[in-house]
Amino acid sequence: MSGCPFMGRNHQLFSSNSSQPEEDDSQKGINKASKGGIVYGEYLQLDKVLNAQVLQSQQKGNRIHDEHLFIVTHQAYELWFKQILWELDSVRDLFTKNHVRDERNMLKVVSRIHRITIIFKLLVEQFAVLETMTSLDFFDFRQYLSVASGFQSFQFRLLESKIGVADHLRVAYNRQHYRDTFHGQESENLLRSLQEPSLLQLVEEWLERTPGLERDGFNFWGKLQANIEEGLKLEKQKLEEISNSEEKGDMLEDLNKQTELFTALFDPSRHEHLINKGERRLSYKALQGALMINFYREEPRFQVPFQLLTALMEIDTLMSKWRYNHVCMVHRMIGSKAGTGGSSGYCYLRSTVSDRYKVFVDLFNLATFLVPRAWVPKLDPQIHKFHYMAECNDSSYNSYSSEDSD
Amino acid sequence: MSGCPFMGRNHQLFSSNSSQPEEDDSQKGINKASKGGIVYGEYLQLDKVLNAQVLQSQQKGNRIHDEHLFIVTHQAYELWFKQILWELDSVRDLFTKNHVRDERNMLKVVSRIHRITIIFKLLVEQFAVLETMTSLDFFDFRQYLSVASGFQSFQFRLLESKIGVADHLRVAYNRQHYRDTFHGQESENLLRSLQEPSLLQLVEEWLERTPGLERDGFNFWGKLQANIEEGLKLEKQKLEEISNSEEKGDMLEDLNKQTELFTALFDPSRHEHLINKGERRLSYKALQGALMINFYREEPRFQVPFQLLTALMEIDTLMSKWRYNHVCMVHRMIGSKAGTGGSSGYCYLRSTVSDRYKVFVDLFNLATFLVPRAWVPKLDPQIHKFHYMAECNDSSYNSYSSEDSD
Amino acid sequence: MSGCPFMGRNHQLFSSNSSQPEEDDSQKGINKASKGGIVYGEYLQLDKVLNAQVLQSQQKGNRIHDEHLFIVTHQAYELWFKQILWELDSVRDLFTKNHVRDERNMLKVVSRIHRITIIFKLLVEQFAVLETMTSLDFFDFRQYLSVASGFQSFQFRLLESKIGVADHLRVAYNRQHYRDTFHGQESENLLRSLQEPSLLQLVEEWLERTPGLERDGFNFWGKLQANIEEGLKLEKQKLEEISNSEEKGDMLEDLNKQTELFTALFDPSRHEHLINKGERRLSYKALQGALMINFYREEPRFQVPFQLLTALMEIDTLMSKWRYNHVCMVHRMIGSKAGTGGSSGYCYLRSTVSDRYKVFVDLFNLATFLVPRAWVPKLDPQIHKFHYMAECNDSSYNSYSSEDSD
Amino acid sequence: MSGCPFMGRNHQLFSSNSSQPEEDDSQKGINKASKGGIVYGEYLQLDKVLNAQVLQSQQKGNRIHDEHLFIVTHQAYELWFKQILWELDSVRDLFTKNHVRDERNMLKVVSRIHRITIIFKLLVEQFAVLETMTSLDFFDFRQYLSVASGFQSFQFRLLESKIGVADHLRVAYNRQHYRDTFHGQESENLLRSLQEPSLLQLVEEWLERTPGLERDGFNFWGKLQANIEEGLKLEKQKLEEISNSEEKGDMLEDLNKQTELFTALFDPSRHEHLINKGERRLSYKALQGALMINFYREEPRFQVPFQLLTALMEIDTLMSKWRYNHVCMVHRMIGSKAGTGGSSGYCYLRSTVSDRYKVFVDLFNLATFLVPRAWVPKLDPQIHKFHYMAECNDSSYNSYSSEDSD
Repeated sequence: MSGCPFMGRNHQLFSSNSSQPEEDDSQKGINKASKGGIVYGEYLQLDKVLNAQVLQSQQKGNRIHDEHLFIVTHQAYELWFKQILWELDSVRDLFTKNHVRDERNMLKVVSRIHRITIIFKLLVEQFAVLETMTSLDFFDFRQYLSVASGFQSFQFRLLESKIGVADHLRVAYNRQHYRDTFHGQESENLLRSLQEPSLLQLVEEWLERTPGLERDGFNFWGKLQANIEEGLKLEKQKLEEISNSEEKGDMLEDLNKQTELFTALFDPSRHEHLINKGERRLSYKALQGALMINFYREEPRFQVPFQLLTALMEIDTLMSKWRYNHVCMVHRMIGSKAGTGGSSGYCYLRSTVSDRYKVFVDLFNLATFLVPRAWVPKLDPQIHKFHYMAECNDSSYNSYSSEDSD
Repeated sequence: MSGCPFMGRNHQLFSSNSSQPEEDDSQKGINKASKGGIVYGEYLQLDKVLNAQVLQSQQKGNRIHDEHLFIVTHQAYELWFKQILWELDSVRDLFTKNHVRDERNMLKVVSRIHRITIIFKLLVEQFAVLETMTSLDFFDFRQYLSVASGFQSFQFRLLESKIGVADHLRVAYNRQHYRDTFHGQESENLLRSLQEPSLLQLVEEWLERTPGLERDGFNFWGKLQANIEEGLKLEKQKLEEISNSEEKGDMLEDLNKQTELFTALFDPSRHEHLINKGERRLSYKALQGALMINFYREEPRFQVPFQLLTALMEIDTLMSKWRYNHVCMVHRMIGSKAGTGGSSGYCYLRSTVSDRYKVFVDLFNLATFLVPRAWVPKLDPQIHKFHYMAECNDSSYNSYSSEDSD
Repeated sequence: MSGCPFMGRNHQLFSSNSSQPEEDDSQKGINKASKGGIVYGEYLQLDKVLNAQVLQSQQKGNRIHDEHLFIVTHQAYELWFKQILWELDSVRDLFTKNHVRDERNMLKVVSRIHRITIIFKLLVEQFAVLETMTSLDFFDFRQYLSVASGFQSFQFRLLESKIGVADHLRVAYNRQHYRDTFHGQESENLLRSLQEPSLLQLVEEWLERTPGLERDGFNFWGKLQANIEEGLKLEKQKLEEISNSEEKGDMLEDLNKQTELFTALFDPSRHEHLINKGERRLSYKALQGALMINFYREEPRFQVPFQLLTALMEIDTLMSKWRYNHVCMVHRMIGSKAGTGGSSGYCYLRSTVSDRYKVFVDLFNLATFLVPRAWVPKLDPQIHKFHYMAECNDSSYNSYSSEDSD
Repeated sequence: MSGCPFMGRNHQLFSSNSSQPEEDDSQKGINKASKGGIVYGEYLQLDKVLNAQVLQSQQKGNRIHDEHLFIVTHQAYELWFKQILWELDSVRDLFTKNHVRDERNMLKVVSRIHRITIIFKLLVEQFAVLETMTSLDFFDFRQYLSVASGFQSFQFRLLESKIGVADHLRVAYNRQHYRDTFHGQESENLLRSLQEPSLLQLVEEWLERTPGLERDGFNFWGKLQANIEEGLKLEKQKLEEISNSEEKGDMLEDLNKQTELFTALFDPSRHEHLINKGERRLSYKALQGALMINFYREEPRFQVPFQLLTALMEIDTLMSKWRYNHVCMVHRMIGSKAGTGGSSGYCYLRSTVSDRYKVFVDLFNLATFLVPRAWVPKLDPQIHKFHYMAECNDSSYNSYSSEDSD
């Protein structure tokens, strides 16, 4: 047994005094790099990327070593923000243009949303690098930054808007609207992003299309309401039969809470009320679709949609962890004084670690409405077949073969 | 109790229907960003960094979504490589210019080496992002890269050289010297880096200066040899007194191995032999210094030096984990076929995950030479005092106050 | 807006001098814990788990602080190994009993395999904790461990066997068969695990069932072979028409390599040969199924199966990273001397970081056989419908509703 | 070149058909495990640890797969909490008994605190494993847990108390004192931990001993106050000389804020006021010591103490990240309804992610009091020498040689 697959033999060394070893697979390639063609550094435009580190402290004649880390870390954040926006735009595009192929696009949508979560995990880790800078090191060059502040990341605001952070739920920044920080092209881009459908809105529309919600079809919501009401009634009867005790009292109290909860769930005006308060974001019908996907997640038709809902919550969770890690770092770096951009730094940032900024808050709160399996309406076998027919026609296959044109 | 420190009250919202809340600390800053001065995007030169993503597939009229990820990931790697080089150069500089202030620089040296390890940890994690790309996604744009290969990262080669990866221990790449991949300025820079002292060489010189090694002073090495020989002799006597058994046989065998091991340790010609084989890299005297620091690591004088030795091993370990993670990713992405740059990819990379590339291999192998505490020579109180006098003179204080000029 | 959802108000403090705040949602629960029922510590059997740390050094009258870390870390590893075995057994069970419901089980299978990868990621991270112990700290209690070695983890061997590490591909340990380390019940369990179908074997059987492989049906393999042969012929014709040059020579060489590669792929005897060498593990038909799932991964029918193949590679990758991290730690801890259990530690462990131990090596090497999309046979629409009918009958629904009985 | 160091040759396989390879280093050890002595499983008491997973759902006849994960994850948390307590107790012990050897213990103290931070990092990561359980999976067995809640981890409360979380700053839990959850031995242990000095108190006493604080000696605080007052006066003079402008106004405002800030810093009654509010925790003298260590961190005498202060902040940060990750997981798992133990779960937990729970909050806020290097009092050379003399006497050496008796 020889060659690379199991890495058995010695590898050739440059040292002249080693006796000529047998040639092995690691030496058999042709070194194309020496033959021309685009090379690594040009491809990555490293002349731009690696010449973009200008230390303000050095410009002012007092080079502070750690400013380089500050710059590189922020640039790395911005690079990854750009990648997240790239994925986000492609997902929004898939949702916008391709209703008819919902299912076929699902793997791509889930994979790209998943990729965003993986990038956010890295961004949360990345604070560890900046945290190697002490507050004393930072103090040495803070003065040169004058007004440059982390608050001003245009891409991060854009990203929030495109995912669906609600403008009217944002925390004000020094009594100013957050968009006032940006001018010219940036300000316009932000404004435009608010006019385009956000990921939240697109997901909402997709959820509203969940097969099985049709009142004149499977009528999931109607059936679910009937089952739950029946279930709660039976529970109550069972409870009333047992003899009085403190435990019975507790159980009745619990049951009453449950009943209230579900009564509210099936009351559309209650939903509107919560939306106005900012505690719900999805339309009533989309909420129904989401609950449906949760209950039937093992149906082949709903497996990948269920993964999508999970991944969307993951984005919210990771963005809030990112915010919280940011807060922790700022606390170490500047204490409770004002940040470099004039904001009252720590306090402002801390106030953004809030459920107000959770876009898919409704998906989290679905956990409140879980019911015993027996209460879930039995599935109509038709649900499997319906959508499947549509996909197999020729036009959908053709569009598949040119799938890179997204 | 009010204000931010415990985040007690509601934060102002943009929504007009909220009744006017009390003002809180998060709104008291002056928004300097709106007053001019260098802004975030200019400071970070984002026009350069965020406009450096040109997809070859798009240039050729067939935009492949995932090529963007490929580019951004590699650019992020290069940004961090630049930061590592920045820290590495500063550490090499501190060692080169500042013998006299060894101790005072130690915190700075250890902190910066530690920062390099934190960055490498991030770089190891970062593979998770690229691993969201499947081999099929990669296949779709591999053809457009023609010859651009990960092998060609100039900064990574430079980094290896500056740390001290030995030129003659490198694995050959398609029978070519690794430096032949680079041309012009890059080739010259690589060559020059080989002429400057590497981190390994500077650490070696610093270890040779370890106080206590002086033969006419504390004479650590001489005392240690005497103690160990005495210790082994006593062990042998004890062993010979017990009655014969299989266990006694095993213990004698162990003791003989120990004795061989230490005989070899105290034999300078054996050391030369191992250096010639590439299995040791430090000079004999530096090795003695490193062992000394290990044994007396709790002495105030040696606490931070001990941390430095640990951090140096960490760099080696993390670089080899980086290589191994790279290998794993390449296996998924291209199987065992040739890589984009013509190398036999996987096999070449796998061969670089070798102890040949461990620069501080001697520090790892110190673990082989640990002895019972009783055998460690008692410390000479002079060792504490000697170096301390030197630091407290005026000139050293002055150089402290201008410490940022490194 | 009040209550928790946006965390608006102050929270009640114990301090008596705080004026009575409004009650908020965080105080409205009933503290059931004070009412009886199984409590946290009993539920987790903490009396067992937290009283299982007996330091050998302390038993011998010389308590060494760091031995506690050594014990706890290994116990945490074993706890997680048990969880991995739990998931692995459930997945093997799902595959064994439920052919007919393949698709419906897919989400569960993928989620549990995914969970195993998440646990392995943690286990890779977990080395960081043990690495806070220096070789000197370890040296202080190594002697008391006598023969207890990390090599002896029964659960880890079991886990390897159940996934499908091939007995005959394992590296020998001090010339002994690895199973000789275990006795009695453990030895029997290991042996039995070799007689049960491994995950590899179950996945193989599942892949062989991939719809579309039927020679008298869609005949994927036959169609693919025809397309590739035709494709390569056309490529060759195109190449021969261009005028001679070095480039043409290179391209012809590449094309010849490609042709060889695919000729070998479609040669069943070549497959047998590679299986005998241990370089392939899947049956020929299973390999075909895996390639089919790769090519048609966006078909709704194949989306989750494709995720499964990805997750299986992830397990292999993470297990090899685990091994490599283990090697790195051992190098720091004991250098190149023998380990505590008598093995030549570092060298033995290093030899297990080998592709021999990659169970799903075939899935990695699929990357070698990717072809342009145009060469992939057009899909037969029947493939969607076939399996779907089966699921919607009553019996499958019934088994769904009792899905917890797995 | 042969043998393991560079892993050059093939490794022996079990397969009988491999021709006899040369023996290599990985096979030369003696397999002591087969000779008796304590074996791995006994040493780790795996019979206890691996038989402590009893599923309540299974007990009730309805085994739910994911309950196993729930149990194992919590047990892993508890194992690590035990390890953290082990390190914490040893550090508290070192501080309690060893004033005289402060410096010599510093490496040990810092290493153990650092280890705690590494464990906490793992515990933060560990949520990723539990997050693979969906709210639906959890719902299936929540009912069987009745009252067992994460709130009831005795070890975690103990850990908080031993670090120094202030009893009177804790958030109440369902209007109850947190200690009421515990009974018998646990309750007593918690109470006793409140009577022993916490880590915060021991660090405080150690900071108060910082050499250089003596009023009749170096008098750091006095000198610092004088320098700062002088510095601010000069700044003001410079500012007043420039002509009026908006910018001048801003700068004057900034300077006034600075002046207020430092006036408050040097006012002991202000310090008392903040302590009463719970916004400061350290004594006034300890705060001075901490600031001194920050300013002179590059002095050999203060390098490791500075690392200690950094590591203590790290603990606070990681504990609050742990709390926040816990909150995020609970939100996914149960929404905003009551938790298993009857608490209003999410809301209660969210309220504990508060600076109230930051023990070393003063160290963070030091960042507020940084001043230009020129204002830092020049160091008295005596500070280096004084403490060093004390260490070199015989008794300290003797205590060194028996360092394992901690």
